[in-house]
Amino acid sequence: MKNQLVEVQERINPYIHRTPVLTSKLLNEIAGCELFFKCENFQRMGAFKMRGAVNAIMQLTDEQKQKGVVTHSSGNFAQALALAAKSLGIAAYVVMPSTAPTVKKNAVKGYGGIVVECAPTNEAREAYSNRLVAEKGLTFIHPSNDLNVILGQGTAAMELLEDYPDISCIYTPVGGGGLVAGTILAAENFSKKVKVVGAEPALVDDAYRSLVSNKIETHDNKPTIADGLKTQLGDVNFPIIKKGIDHIVLVEEDEIIEAMRLIWERMKIVIEPSSAVAFAGLLKEKGTLKNQKVGIILSGGNVDVQKLPF
Amino acid sequence: MKNQLVEVQERINPYIHRTPVLTSKLLNEIAGCELFFKCENFQRMGAFKMRGAVNAIMQLTDEQKQKGVVTHSSGNFAQALALAAKSLGIAAYVVMPSTAPTVKKNAVKGYGGIVVECAPTNEAREAYSNRLVAEKGLTFIHPSNDLNVILGQGTAAMELLEDYPDISCIYTPVGGGGLVAGTILAAENFSKKVKVVGAEPALVDDAYRSLVSNKIETHDNKPTIADGLKTQLGDVNFPIIKKGIDHIVLVEEDEIIEAMRLIWERMKIVIEPSSAVAFAGLLKEKGTLKNQKVGIILSGGNVDVQKLPF
Repeated sequence: MKNQLVEVQERINPYIHRTPVLTSKLLNEIAGCELFFKCENFQRMGAFKMRGAVNAIMQLTDEQKQKGVVTHSSGNFAQALALAAKSLGIAAYVVMPSTAPTVKKNAVKGYGGIVVECAPTNEAREAYSNRLVAEKGLTFIHPSNDLNVILGQGTAAMELLEDYPDISCIYTPVGGGGLVAGTILAAENFSKKVKVVGAEPALVDDAYRSLVSNKIETHDNKPTIADGLKTQLGDVNFPIIKKGIDHIVLVEEDEIIEAMRLIWERMKIVIEPSSAVAFAGLLKEKGTLKNQKVGIILSGGNVDVQKLPF
Repeated sequence: MKNQLVEVQERINPYIHRTPVLTSKLLNEIAGCELFFKCENFQRMGAFKMRGAVNAIMQLTDEQKQKGVVTHSSGNFAQALALAAKSLGIAAYVVMPSTAPTVKKNAVKGYGGIVVECAPTNEAREAYSNRLVAEKGLTFIHPSNDLNVILGQGTAAMELLEDYPDISCIYTPVGGGGLVAGTILAAENFSKKVKVVGAEPALVDDAYRSLVSNKIETHDNKPTIADGLKTQLGDVNFPIIKKGIDHIVLVEEDEIIEAMRLIWERMKIVIEPSSAVAFAGLLKEKGTLKNQKVGIILSGGNVDVQKLPF
């Protein structure tokens, strides 16, 4: 697995940014530990999803590349697949619910993706994706439940551990599970001791409950501000998470908003609410982290600045 | 002057951040030239003002240091003087209008400054400052019309020119004139060819009109969103500006807001409206900058995220 991750990193490097790791004395004081923020909000298209999308596409056969790819997403993976496909010269179709905000559809189109609208149900988007696979011979790429995507996402933590090998713990947000699973694989292979902690909104706590029940649980789609995390664990990433995660911490909506505000005001960077979930989880547990060096993956910065929660 | 600037830089270095220079392919495409953003929004206390405040305090005699300093400001210089004084172990008094937002008063207090409230008029704040100088033996430090302050502010452009010696032009916002005057001195001494362009809100165009009339003009305090720029040119910085500036470009309020939104959304960083004025000016003149390398000083990031213009 270690060699495989190194290959992934070398493969995707020309198509992604090596994002900076930022620090803040003010936030260190608030948290009581030394923080290292891996800034995937500065990644191409504004989120870590670019890493997995590039890796998954690059692993296709020439014949698959010629026909193109399809995914269903109304979030960052939609934009990531579109931009990755454009960078690699292939076609990308994105199935989006007709109710998705125009700004999201336009972002995908802006990166050269082909938006296909469907009714806003899980059944409809799967039916549409399947039809495109059957009719056009496209390859379906899942936003998080795909080993090539997971390995791509893991390169963010690989870079963080290369820069700061002595951190003891990495906090990541948990949504569909791709980022946290990739982070676990990176931690297992490029560090002797680093723990991976997931942070999840209490309103969509399916991953937390899945760890308790030892099977994949669903959530009932409550409206969390961290809308990027309203995705579902899958059978590829759940076993990795179950085996390798230290624990998942749940955070409330007001804690997410406060963590987001702190990062905006103190670090002067724009992050999306889903990114703030990891920092909110860390703040909740700061008593256990005293004087440690802790990594945090700021997953993305795509936020509608006209609709902020504060 | 060149040696003097080098001494200033060496003197203040332990107390300030060397801020990063960020680039953005997306914004390069929009502007049609290659942009280098000097990110003083990441400076200590969130703005370039820290540089001048530290330099001015460090130039005081031991006796002056023992008695302390005073300024009048309700903006970034108030916080800068408080934090600089705290870092150097001396007392700082800040005369602020009683009408200043509580958040600004608290920010100064948070950095250890002593806030003295006065009636919200120019006469009152000068009377109060003078009284503190007389009664307590404090040294008054002007936010922008002071050569030590101006030289300190010039170190931002010095760093930018060290990192990117081949830029042809630097855009800075123009308020009280300290930053633009310091930038001119840096450009004259550390570059053979770089032009300095000032950008000013059309609503407070006193510097623009001063260049035309060849004497210091006043403005009538119209409510621009770039409230950090509602300060007045002085007799120390105006001669430097008059002699060394290429020109001043005026920008409208909607242009400032659009430039600010572009930087937030595309670069994922938090800047205050006054910072966006320089980029707005550049966008207005982009036809004249084709394919050039252009520096922009993003002056600060202290913005109330609960009161955004978009």
